[in-house]
Amino acid sequence: MEKNRTEVGTLGDFGLINRLTENTEIYNASTLMGVGDDAAVIDSFGKQIVVTTDMLVEGVHFDLMYMPLKHLGYKSVIVNLSDIYAMNANPTQITVSIAISNRFSVEALEEIYDGIHLACKKYGVDLVGGDTTTSTSGLIISITAIGELDENKLTTRKGAKEHHLICVTGNLGAAYTGLLLLEREKKIFIESPNVQPDLENQSYIIERILKPEAQKELIEWLDKHQIVPSAMIDISDGLSSEILHICKQSECGCVIYEDKIPIHEQTRQNAEMFKIAAITCALNGGEDYEMLFTISTDDFEKMATCPFVQIIGHITSAEKGTHLITSGNHKIELKAQGWNPLKN
Amino acid sequence: MEKNRTEVGTLGDFGLINRLTENTEIYNASTLMGVGDDAAVIDSFGKQIVVTTDMLVEGVHFDLMYMPLKHLGYKSVIVNLSDIYAMNANPTQITVSIAISNRFSVEALEEIYDGIHLACKKYGVDLVGGDTTTSTSGLIISITAIGELDENKLTTRKGAKEHHLICVTGNLGAAYTGLLLLEREKKIFIESPNVQPDLENQSYIIERILKPEAQKELIEWLDKHQIVPSAMIDISDGLSSEILHICKQSECGCVIYEDKIPIHEQTRQNAEMFKIAAITCALNGGEDYEMLFTISTDDFEKMATCPFVQIIGHITSAEKGTHLITSGNHKIELKAQGWNPLKN
Repeated sequence: MEKNRTEVGTLGDFGLINRLTENTEIYNASTLMGVGDDAAVIDSFGKQIVVTTDMLVEGVHFDLMYMPLKHLGYKSVIVNLSDIYAMNANPTQITVSIAISNRFSVEALEEIYDGIHLACKKYGVDLVGGDTTTSTSGLIISITAIGELDENKLTTRKGAKEHHLICVTGNLGAAYTGLLLLEREKKIFIESPNVQPDLENQSYIIERILKPEAQKELIEWLDKHQIVPSAMIDISDGLSSEILHICKQSECGCVIYEDKIPIHEQTRQNAEMFKIAAITCALNGGEDYEMLFTISTDDFEKMATCPFVQIIGHITSAEKGTHLITSGNHKIELKAQGWNPLKN
Repeated sequence: MEKNRTEVGTLGDFGLINRLTENTEIYNASTLMGVGDDAAVIDSFGKQIVVTTDMLVEGVHFDLMYMPLKHLGYKSVIVNLSDIYAMNANPTQITVSIAISNRFSVEALEEIYDGIHLACKKYGVDLVGGDTTTSTSGLIISITAIGELDENKLTTRKGAKEHHLICVTGNLGAAYTGLLLLEREKKIFIESPNVQPDLENQSYIIERILKPEAQKELIEWLDKHQIVPSAMIDISDGLSSEILHICKQSECGCVIYEDKIPIHEQTRQNAEMFKIAAITCALNGGEDYEMLFTISTDDFEKMATCPFVQIIGHITSAEKGTHLITSGNHKIELKAQGWNPLKN
């Protein structure tokens, strides 16, 4: 009998992890950073390695009705590599644990592993360990990624300062509109299995949800141009949620501009079709795995030459709050409305 | 539609992981050892770290009817630390991912974490990262452990040579008889909920299944006495299965003696009650998390002074096969009959 029962969904992912780990003690001098960022940082005989872990659960994080198994394997790796890159580190190894119910065959598992091997090859990462077991229902993939950090390059969520510039890679909201499209087609398929899916000219946003990529290109570009961001986080839960993480941990505020937020043409078209503002998809839609980071104004000129990065605003003092300036020049407060897998 | 469907259970855990990872390519010079031992070995700027991962699934690896949540958290850490010690390394950090259905409350999760924190404290290991998410059913815990390896101490399953002595820590078969007892009580409880469980004087074997320990003591003893085993593996699937892993990877045979295999008095009593030979529990019952290792005969005198290690036999050439000499002086072939979670 439980005297106090708190529902898991009431705390949110972030609040829950905080509550479960707030009493964590550290026994090893080698643990430089534990819970609370995209990855942990471990001193390994004077050098630093980073470690992160992510679990994907069928029915919560993916739907096998439209997620091919090979893509699922690929994406499971990508979401972990993304966390390693978000520390400004280079992923080097992963371990993979999979629990599957007996409705899956060995060939199905091999498809998942094909995707895992493909991501490993593309990102130059080694699969070094794993565990495969049965589950009573569904499919669960848990991956841990390890990366190496060059000296003085560690970039956490804490370090953004007033006047620093806020940057994002690629474009935002694409994965979310891709998901809306797949959910619509699934509904149509369930109602009328003979209707062919109407996904012509939508391949970009569908690829963004089914086969995302991690921002290796950015980490290499920053290295080449000798820029170390003051703060960085990968965009897995939506821009609003991520920028608030940086502001909270860096104890600062921010202003971002709607007009500056990069949104793909296909994202706009589909958002319009679904009668949602494209900016809402960009702010609150998750799973883009683009990178959000801040840089000193000293690095502005160099950064401006990067073809795949957009400067979307700047950091302010904490008292000024966290705001979006709309295209119509309205100032609205940014709130986290990112996706919470614990509220399902 | 699948053209070829192979059922997962037909390959066995070992065969399956082999098939899924046989094409694994290695892209980083830092990956010294990948899939195939208790843990992977990574070169970290000239020093070595080891990494392992294990997943525990409700209904497959544990039954919450008799497994308290705190013990479950504790055990989930132990099974991973055991793999690190099996490489002759010292665990330093873990990451924890948990998927839970909404039948669990935050307080239930906190109990699991209490057990995790307790194991971390006892073994001096830091919890550095994690992920908590919902599952559609049941509870799944996936843990990755990282450890440091002192130079020239790496001990794998490969390295046992003819005449080397085969050693085990503690005693074997206890966890399996404890499990039989708990399963019996569960059956009685389901049939007659008012009958009180009859577990008096059985606390030792029950603790062995519900709250196992990892062999930190052995690794420290070996270090203090400057012994590096020629091969080592932790006993998670039963002595037979583990010794065959060492023989296969070391390309050798073995002889072990029934009379030498350490079995606790409570294990014997309960095996008798269940009408199973105690030696069968020791050979084929899993989850003892004792350590099996081989040493050179040069280390015999030192090893003989270790109060918690028993020498149970010796390594032979591969042609001589793998055998047990029974108390009645019969020679029987050792076969792996360890627990296979994929056959459930």
